[in-house]
Amino acid sequence: MQKLKTSRRIKEVIASPIRKFLPLVKKVEQQGVKVIKLNIGDPDILPPKDFIQVLQQIKLTDFYYAPSSGVNKYLLAWIKYFDNFKIKITAENIVPTMGASEAIIFVLQAVCDIDDEVLVFEPFYTNYKALSQTCGVKLAPITLKMEDGYKLPNIKKIEQKISKKTKAIIIINPDNPTGKVWRKDEVATIIKIALKYNLFIIADETYREIIFQGKPICFLRNQRIKNNLIVIDSVSKRFSVPGIRMGVVISYNKEIIKAILKLAMARLAVSTVGQLATAKIITQSKKYIKIIIQEYKVRVEVLNKGLNKIDGIETCRAQGAFYQVVKLPVENSEDFIKFLITKFRYKNKTLLLAPMSDFYITPGLGKNEVRVALVTNIKELKEGMEILKRALAEFKG
Amino acid sequence: MQKLKTSRRIKEVIASPIRKFLPLVKKVEQQGVKVIKLNIGDPDILPPKDFIQVLQQIKLTDFYYAPSSGVNKYLLAWIKYFDNFKIKITAENIVPTMGASEAIIFVLQAVCDIDDEVLVFEPFYTNYKALSQTCGVKLAPITLKMEDGYKLPNIKKIEQKISKKTKAIIIINPDNPTGKVWRKDEVATIIKIALKYNLFIIADETYREIIFQGKPICFLRNQRIKNNLIVIDSVSKRFSVPGIRMGVVISYNKEIIKAILKLAMARLAVSTVGQLATAKIITQSKKYIKIIIQEYKVRVEVLNKGLNKIDGIETCRAQGAFYQVVKLPVENSEDFIKFLITKFRYKNKTLLLAPMSDFYITPGLGKNEVRVALVTNIKELKEGMEILKRALAEFKG
Repeated sequence: MQKLKTSRRIKEVIASPIRKFLPLVKKVEQQGVKVIKLNIGDPDILPPKDFIQVLQQIKLTDFYYAPSSGVNKYLLAWIKYFDNFKIKITAENIVPTMGASEAIIFVLQAVCDIDDEVLVFEPFYTNYKALSQTCGVKLAPITLKMEDGYKLPNIKKIEQKISKKTKAIIIINPDNPTGKVWRKDEVATIIKIALKYNLFIIADETYREIIFQGKPICFLRNQRIKNNLIVIDSVSKRFSVPGIRMGVVISYNKEIIKAILKLAMARLAVSTVGQLATAKIITQSKKYIKIIIQEYKVRVEVLNKGLNKIDGIETCRAQGAFYQVVKLPVENSEDFIKFLITKFRYKNKTLLLAPMSDFYITPGLGKNEVRVALVTNIKELKEGMEILKRALAEFKG
Repeated sequence: MQKLKTSRRIKEVIASPIRKFLPLVKKVEQQGVKVIKLNIGDPDILPPKDFIQVLQQIKLTDFYYAPSSGVNKYLLAWIKYFDNFKIKITAENIVPTMGASEAIIFVLQAVCDIDDEVLVFEPFYTNYKALSQTCGVKLAPITLKMEDGYKLPNIKKIEQKISKKTKAIIIINPDNPTGKVWRKDEVATIIKIALKYNLFIIADETYREIIFQGKPICFLRNQRIKNNLIVIDSVSKRFSVPGIRMGVVISYNKEIIKAILKLAMARLAVSTVGQLATAKIITQSKKYIKIIIQEYKVRVEVLNKGLNKIDGIETCRAQGAFYQVVKLPVENSEDFIKFLITKFRYKNKTLLLAPMSDFYITPGLGKNEVRVALVTNIKELKEGMEILKRALAEFKG
């Protein structure tokens, strides 16, 4: 007789390294300890004011099931948004999703069968790991090194990782967790490989405009990869509204959109209210995004000034998004984070960071690294660096 | 060299029979034809008025990422709601999901590995088919027959379908699409089987209180199946807000909740706004639900009066939810539906129904059946029946 038990596949799914310490944190917060949270990409900056106004205009008749293909207003908003970048898309190129997360699930299922592979550059946004596990997809890692400024390795090193099972290549630009902005020549290399091996390019452009120099690279602008390209996007980060859970898949490839739409139909639709509420801010993005870029730029400056004062630390300054990876003078950053939460206090405060191990596939990598998310104001960020400095001194000896 | 193409598994996923005609319908609507839509379970009844009030109280600071385990207010609302049924649950028994749809995906992944099986009673809510296809899970059907009033067959007929790969049994109560309310003795039989074979019971109680006689059966009340039971619930139908996409998984089984929470973490969270906005209506459900039950009761009466006047029709009157299956005097209901959309007009109006084939697993079943969703007012429903009568006469001859 079989036992009543959960599936084997669920055991393989990792618990989010960004979120798994939260129950522990909740406990110490209840004891009155202030925890400065630089672990999660949850922007502290308030969303555009228009947002509330739009939400207040929602009517009792606005709670119907949206079409799986989306509410017109929301689709038009994205079309208008991309028009700002001189990119033409139509409603037929878009499928709304619950944030970028669901977009990732849909795309992996649409391009991969069980045990198929997708190339990723490690370190990469750790949730791709859990999401690909739930889809039965394997991630084949190409390691980027902090000491090389996370630059793309030789093309042969990438080609070595391609097998018959390889279906796609994921690029997050600007990158989470490294803050890397991909260079034009690097993007050209990725495109070259995708065309040579008939791979899909999964371009996660969640942080698109958050770059501190130059103009954003949009993969959608490249006509040669029209059939290869699948863009994942979200309002969460650039409009500081992760709690509304609104995203999109965009592709010029009709087969892909048809496939994604089948998956979308199976779960009916995303929130009608979410689509109506975000439409306006998407079309009026320019002004707001300009302001937040300025803020994140200052925070990166403050972070690196703070890190400079700490002995034994290595890092690579963020060029975009709002994350940066830091190598700590510890053996295991997870132990250090637990120490921060359970033991270390400075003025009754402590710090939460995300351990980096699970941002890698290759075992052993990132063990002494953390990801810092720049999601608190300058004052708290400075305090955070002070705590990091003092805690490291105490942890070591 | 491989081709750039979508996955094989995506080809197996069926397009929703409830939604696939919508592009065609959109076209004729643009030509000025009024289409009475009885295809989709999208309630026309307005949600509780409080809903708007709550939404207007949402602040600019309410757009943060919710914990994967849910916002306190939302969890407390469900706890209070079940307290009305004298059922005790705690926050640790609940995981919020994007509607019942995501709850179904999570539960299937948590209890089944690829190619594992789940028992369903056909006809069943068709989206289980597409959702289980995306999870690599097989549905093993036990056929319920309209002419028997969809009653549960002999226990041996059910046991025949159980193999080593069977992990769970799904019961939708009240049922979509049949409107069946499961009898106490039938529920007892299902519990007996689940305990004998160590199967999970996946109880989809989305329509819980919408029954026209007696009191709702809540599986959560049964202490003997505490470890076997996984309840799927949603605010969509009972509060007429499908567009807010809010649901839950509820279980006393800690391993199940832990597994579901890992899947929830992988996609971060459900809408904070959705949780805050629905909390109040969940706690104040009684009054509202009483009103809508009364309305659906009248609609069932009107539907059956209308159907009675049409020759060659067979049906089984709904006892709950807001659906009823109708056997039409046609060979293929899908052809008839296409005829309705593209050719038939009565006073420049026509009718949309859901074809039943894909509500079955067994090939050939349901070919001449449609599902009627009681989601328009009495006047339109009467018109719909008139159209059905006239269209059938014309289609036949």
